Amino acid sequence: MLNKVEHIGIAVKDLEAAIAMYEQLLGIPCYKIEEVESEGVRTAFFLKDGAKIELVASEKAGSAIAGFIEKKGEGMHHIAYDVDDIHAEMERLQAAGFTLISEQPKKGADNKLVCFLHPRSSGGVLVELCQEIQ
Amino acid sequence: MLNKVEHIGIAVKDLEAAIAMYEQLLGIPCYKIEEVESEGVRTAFFLKDGAKIELVASEKAGSAIAGFIEKKGEGMHHIAYDVDDIHAEMERLQAAGFTLISEQPKKGADNKLVCFLHPRSSGGVLVELCQEIQ
Repeated sequence: MLNKVEHIGIAVKDLEAAIAMYEQLLGIPCYKIEEVESEGVRTAFFLKDGAKIELVASEKAGSAIAGFIEKKGEGMHHIAYDVDDIHAEMERLQAAGFTLISEQPKKGADNKLVCFLHPRSSGGVLVELCQEIQ
Repeated sequence: MLNKVEHIGIAVKDLEAAIAMYEQLLGIPCYKIEEVESEGVRTAFFLKDGAKIELVASEKAGSAIAGFIEKKGEGMHHIAYDVDDIHAEMERLQAAGFTLISEQPKKGADNKLVCFLHPRSSGGVLVELCQEIQ
């Protein structure tokens, strides 16, 4: 089962400009900036309580985020749900007809193991499962 | 200040099919279906704790959701933030350079007063402010 919305991922072109805009919008400071080398992105996090906002900017030509922005422009990119056991959830969802983007979870931002579901099997929404690494 | 993410709005073509898919995905039942006549939509809600998921389907040709799906397809539509005083937040955000879609809050789904910020002023994201009606 998916526990709750852990964060919402938002694709941005310029991370520093987006951080300044979100600090105005949310009225709180960004509490963490983190590079995720495996994905070729830099990320910035807001909101300590409830669902977080994760701004994601490409650091590398050809990254998935660069491709998304080229095709669709800046905006909402994915919804991440917290899970207790990512392997069990991957198995459950695959059996229920959802398409996993990778066969194995990967190390994501913010100390998580992550796996994505393909939007074509989840109503046009890129869904991330994330499990806190203990 | 925006308190927290209250819900994520997702545009869907067929509300019943989307509810069935989300019940599989989230592993919990939809807890409320509600028509919002002023917007020409029907909505379905999931997740009692943390940020809710709001599925939104058009009930009327020419609704904003029908236009969104025609242009962009099904998928993530808006992020709604809980606020204590929607009028004060509308004033604060307008002064900070954000563009409001309406001059006055409207009655939205789930017993809220709502107002939207135009995505062109908020990095491609349709932002909703929502205040619980007491």
